[in-house]
Amino acid sequence: MDHKSGGAEPVALAEFLSRVLGRVRPLPAIDLDLTQACGCVLAADVTAPGPLPAFDHATVDGYAVRMEDVAGASPERPVSLKVLGDVSASSWRPVRLIPGTCFAVAAGASLPSGTDAVIPLGWTDEGMAAVRVGQAPKRGNGLRRAGEERESGAVLAHNGQHVTPQLIALLAAAGVGDIVVRPTPRVVVIATGDELMDTGRVSQPGQLVDVNSHALTAAASEAGAHAFRVGICDDEPEALRAVLDDQTLRADLIITTGGTGTGPGDMVRRTFGRDRTVEFSTVAVYPSATIGFGSVGPEEVPITCLPGDPGAAMNAFEVLARPIILRLAGAEPVFRPSVKANLIETVQSPANYREFRPAHVAERRGGGYTVAPLPGGPYTLSGLAEATGLMVLGEKVTTAPAGSTVDVLLFDRHR
Amino acid sequence: MDHKSGGAEPVALAEFLSRVLGRVRPLPAIDLDLTQACGCVLAADVTAPGPLPAFDHATVDGYAVRMEDVAGASPERPVSLKVLGDVSASSWRPVRLIPGTCFAVAAGASLPSGTDAVIPLGWTDEGMAAVRVGQAPKRGNGLRRAGEERESGAVLAHNGQHVTPQLIALLAAAGVGDIVVRPTPRVVVIATGDELMDTGRVSQPGQLVDVNSHALTAAASEAGAHAFRVGICDDEPEALRAVLDDQTLRADLIITTGGTGTGPGDMVRRTFGRDRTVEFSTVAVYPSATIGFGSVGPEEVPITCLPGDPGAAMNAFEVLARPIILRLAGAEPVFRPSVKANLIETVQSPANYREFRPAHVAERRGGGYTVAPLPGGPYTLSGLAEATGLMVLGEKVTTAPAGSTVDVLLFDRHR
Repeated sequence: MDHKSGGAEPVALAEFLSRVLGRVRPLPAIDLDLTQACGCVLAADVTAPGPLPAFDHATVDGYAVRMEDVAGASPERPVSLKVLGDVSASSWRPVRLIPGTCFAVAAGASLPSGTDAVIPLGWTDEGMAAVRVGQAPKRGNGLRRAGEERESGAVLAHNGQHVTPQLIALLAAAGVGDIVVRPTPRVVVIATGDELMDTGRVSQPGQLVDVNSHALTAAASEAGAHAFRVGICDDEPEALRAVLDDQTLRADLIITTGGTGTGPGDMVRRTFGRDRTVEFSTVAVYPSATIGFGSVGPEEVPITCLPGDPGAAMNAFEVLARPIILRLAGAEPVFRPSVKANLIETVQSPANYREFRPAHVAERRGGGYTVAPLPGGPYTLSGLAEATGLMVLGEKVTTAPAGSTVDVLLFDRHR
Repeated sequence: MDHKSGGAEPVALAEFLSRVLGRVRPLPAIDLDLTQACGCVLAADVTAPGPLPAFDHATVDGYAVRMEDVAGASPERPVSLKVLGDVSASSWRPVRLIPGTCFAVAAGASLPSGTDAVIPLGWTDEGMAAVRVGQAPKRGNGLRRAGEERESGAVLAHNGQHVTPQLIALLAAAGVGDIVVRPTPRVVVIATGDELMDTGRVSQPGQLVDVNSHALTAAASEAGAHAFRVGICDDEPEALRAVLDDQTLRADLIITTGGTGTGPGDMVRRTFGRDRTVEFSTVAVYPSATIGFGSVGPEEVPITCLPGDPGAAMNAFEVLARPIILRLAGAEPVFRPSVKANLIETVQSPANYREFRPAHVAERRGGGYTVAPLPGGPYTLSGLAEATGLMVLGEKVTTAPAGSTVDVLLFDRHR
């Protein structure tokens, strides 16, 4: 076992998460224009300001008719009606059907009063002054009535619901212009370490590529945040404090990586541990993680300090930072969807640690899932890059035999 | 049946899609910085510029040792080693272990030559000048060797693969700085119609809220595009042409809604049909759709003209515009993931039309899915707003009985 870093007994993940997430509140609600709110979570129910549809209207291009006039129409015995005028979607006047007459109407047009049905063009000779109708409609054919879908005042969407393109369509159609949502969380990502250099070069002894600020900024975006990559901060407490002073202004969450261990070079822990703004915990997860959580600045912006090893940082983001971002956004649940899957090869896992193992999940013909671990040790990034999910091997699991059922968290791998 | 609009026999969806998608090519590849490429699709394989890991390094804080020195260590008989120095992740000098000595190393640090294992702090007394080791490691404990994960020159990711945060981590770690990807498609959305007014008011006869430009802009974003909402264009051919002249500069795809019918007020069809830049087809899908596809401007920017009815427009986006966006982005497959599901109530569907019915999909205990249609007719937006998927009822289906198996396209409803 190589995942202990000395010090106190590791805290169980469930306990750690409940302690941290208990301190994170959804962001205060704001009023946003519909289009800007896509992807956000509603912070209040939305009611319909008017009926939906707003008025009786045609759903097809055709002729607005009275049932009495066309009830006997058939291909053999078409009915002839006088066309009193045209109504388009953009025109309106208060008109009324009288016996033996109709109006030509366009899809979307308001209906003359007395309309029982709209005869589609295809059932007619498409006449201009008079039209021959070759088929009897059912009452209500080709039209929709005001309030048929939702009454005025009806609840259209609920507090906590995600704003999707389809919900935007419904709300716009009902006359809603803006809605009360949780704003998109703003997340600032800072990598710390004197050894770090920017991407595009191969690491050398003493000079490691900064993987984390790039990968975690992308991961925060994927989790729904506006993510800002600050980049690399040297192992200087004053430099770190200066960066934080600047960044707290635009941050709902700050993520740092590196320096969370107990060694003399672990600057983040020394800096924040001293003034107790951040509490550091060794969490019993594998890949291992010493994670800090606290708040900084007068605004008490939440901060989480993740380990420097990229594999451990990605795992810590997954188990902690991602749920924090979803909590800030007002989303529930804050964890990824999970399925039960049939394990296709035996895996070993460390006792007392909750392991998240990169895995390939597949749907089985006939239902259910299979899951296979990806090759490479727990700290490898290649397995994670190929994974479609994370197999969860609980604290009590030391061997999960082939054929047993395990929980798997599913990544979104397709838009 | 109220979904015919007259004219030629409708074209089958599969035939229409194959014709249109056959004309759409992935966007030309560009070179992007890793962080900017998240969400894009690779246009070339990516090979490792160096080995991964780049050099032998410690994975834990501890002591770099030779096996010969510590093979006999146990809690009862600890082995004492002289500590020759410290190596941190940011320091490096060419050092070498000699018998009876060790180096204190930090996680991430390069290893002295001759190192066989790294003893974690927890197995020791954490001594400074000398350290007592109370447990014998396995060879390779606490360290990773250069190239252990990937050799220099190995393929790290394949042409066609999506760039995920996890892939960014892998590529950055291997020394990759930028990659060749398809750019994010830029999509311009224009609603046409004299009757349209902006959102935030309830529709009136002659004045309809512009649902489509808002909902389709959001839908295009959700499909992975940079979407630009131009808003409302009146039914004036010159106005439409002027808007297009402006917008083609920033568009990889133009989406219009409204005016695709055969009536005298159907401006989009009259304008584009005349010069044959756009070909209009009545597609045998339900909700019904008369859809145009063609190209505009000297750059031959693809354009698709969707119907004005919001339910029909959303459906046409789903069946046609979304696959076009994914094709431009280089993604495969271009269609949503589909599952087989057990239908829990009998549904009727029009013959000869491929129907996409908003539905609620649920995973069944023990595997597989169930699906239930959502209430409301085919043109309602409320069903679509609640849907987690679209039930696909093929051309030959007129009744799908409860208990039968149907195909369902799955929406992404969770991040």
